[in-house]
Amino acid sequence: MNQAVGTVKLRQPYVLFLGEETNPLKAKTAFGLRDWAAESCIAQTRLAGGTIELGLPEREPAAAAAAGARSLVIGVTPPGGRIPAHWARMLVAAADAGLDIVSGLHTPLESIPGLAQAAARAGVQLVDVRKPPAELPRATGQRRSGKRVAMVGTDCALGKKYTALALAKAMRAQGLNADFRATGQTGIMIAGAGIAVDAVIADFIAGAAECISPANAADHWDVIEGQGSLFHPAYAGVTLGLLHGSQPDALILCHDPSRTRIVSWPEYPVPGLKDAAQLYEQTARLTNPAARLVGVSLNTSSLDEAAAEQALVRAERELGVPAFDPLRTRLDMAVASIVGP
Amino acid sequence: MNQAVGTVKLRQPYVLFLGEETNPLKAKTAFGLRDWAAESCIAQTRLAGGTIELGLPEREPAAAAAAGARSLVIGVTPPGGRIPAHWARMLVAAADAGLDIVSGLHTPLESIPGLAQAAARAGVQLVDVRKPPAELPRATGQRRSGKRVAMVGTDCALGKKYTALALAKAMRAQGLNADFRATGQTGIMIAGAGIAVDAVIADFIAGAAECISPANAADHWDVIEGQGSLFHPAYAGVTLGLLHGSQPDALILCHDPSRTRIVSWPEYPVPGLKDAAQLYEQTARLTNPAARLVGVSLNTSSLDEAAAEQALVRAERELGVPAFDPLRTRLDMAVASIVGP
Repeated sequence: MNQAVGTVKLRQPYVLFLGEETNPLKAKTAFGLRDWAAESCIAQTRLAGGTIELGLPEREPAAAAAAGARSLVIGVTPPGGRIPAHWARMLVAAADAGLDIVSGLHTPLESIPGLAQAAARAGVQLVDVRKPPAELPRATGQRRSGKRVAMVGTDCALGKKYTALALAKAMRAQGLNADFRATGQTGIMIAGAGIAVDAVIADFIAGAAECISPANAADHWDVIEGQGSLFHPAYAGVTLGLLHGSQPDALILCHDPSRTRIVSWPEYPVPGLKDAAQLYEQTARLTNPAARLVGVSLNTSSLDEAAAEQALVRAERELGVPAFDPLRTRLDMAVASIVGP
Repeated sequence: MNQAVGTVKLRQPYVLFLGEETNPLKAKTAFGLRDWAAESCIAQTRLAGGTIELGLPEREPAAAAAAGARSLVIGVTPPGGRIPAHWARMLVAAADAGLDIVSGLHTPLESIPGLAQAAARAGVQLVDVRKPPAELPRATGQRRSGKRVAMVGTDCALGKKYTALALAKAMRAQGLNADFRATGQTGIMIAGAGIAVDAVIADFIAGAAECISPANAADHWDVIEGQGSLFHPAYAGVTLGLLHGSQPDALILCHDPSRTRIVSWPEYPVPGLKDAAQLYEQTARLTNPAARLVGVSLNTSSLDEAAAEQALVRAERELGVPAFDPLRTRLDMAVASIVGP
């Protein structure tokens, strides 16, 4: 994988830390890594009482390090999204064993008693993946080589990351030169690099996006995870800066046909597909005049087979581009539409 | 003035610190404060060699404090935008005299030797005006009482702040209940409150904008300083978040008719007035469906009288709203257009 310049960078492979978690819903990060970064996950490690099973060899940090692991990744979300005090011993032991510690939780790793000292002793990194790199540039706006496809959405949390991962996988399976590019914390853990764009200083959003998908070979595709929505009353600024810095040639509109209101902002309706496509194309063309909608990804998880099929046909007819659900349908048409004739 | 909740807050009146500056171009902050916050500027203070003359009484910090000053504001920009080491003695003396210290320069005030201790001793604040408040909320998107007019632009640095200040002054002169609301550092010093929205974490841009113009009396107008431009390849995310959080009823498009390229991004053209008006209205309507363009402010400083007049007539004809140059023309028509019938 061509590493992006100026992004957070993780050392792979990983041992996935599962604490004493028993609820699989609190282990979404671990399952996501196992599913989407399978070749980078070589072990799991639990505390007494933990029951999450990823199907990976169970190894103490030292044994995982001996087996080749470079980082211990916290794969579960404890109550409040914070690191419990009693994890400190295990985390210090992992650092002492030569493992980087990687966390997407709220507690800064530096603040855990003894951990910074252990990391300094062992020469390992403590990586809070939500924390952006210290020195981000302002966006240059200059066109760069390589091709880019960006996920954009009618709301947050409706499948933009999943769509990007599935498309990157399908493109590589067809022998295309393609990489998933991460713009949020789980994506960064999967890709091993990226920037949580919603956490950067406002002046640098587009600059961070330029770092996430730097110049590349002319035939290379960056498949870029989206964030937020241009139709979201709180987060549209993040979405627009990410779009401008990404300079996408192609846009995939992600949508959940069962959703009529913005999640947690119920006064705001989800936009119509045509309105959404129009505004995304118009704004993307500032930094790439050739930007065009090439597909629509529907999250049909709440629909039965027949209703899902109807929704896909309807979306395809409305927008004139291939519609797909990465969990349900083949992606050949979408990939062909991205790559073009 | 109805103080905004959750913004940076400055204590007025000010003594303006001019260092040893001799170049008026490096004292724009001081001149701006003298011109736009005249009632809040009661003294100036210089170091040996300084020649900037604001026409204010020259007073040492202690004498300024005795005369009623509450804050010493750094009003000049030294080389590199940093505070020279030899200013420390004067700044410490000012803190010891009971003055808050206010700076828009890059050097954190906390880092100046002895200053944090002096501030703690004297119980005064050190205010880096570019630094946002620690706890900003995410935007709620909920409509709030009061009326708002937002400055939007075809580029950065073409008169959005000046236009907002001039309009707020003209509205108050007509007896309207109106306040300038600051979104950048000089504006914050003038208003005594505000948030530098380009310096907040990306997720909180619109939330910061909601704090800058909180709920107010039904007949009250916030006149909101703009930042960046939706047509700027680096900063459009800031502009969009600010627009959404501001929920403007009325938009003033600010433009420099002599500018054809985005400053420092010469590959990017300045948009046409109609295109700009269309995108600002469309995006503003997400959070305020009644948002509409009500005026166009032209910076005609590079044109002679006849050319300026032509440009104003042309802009008015193109957009169908009153055109004005706050440095050259009366603002009655613009104010009438903002307030409506």
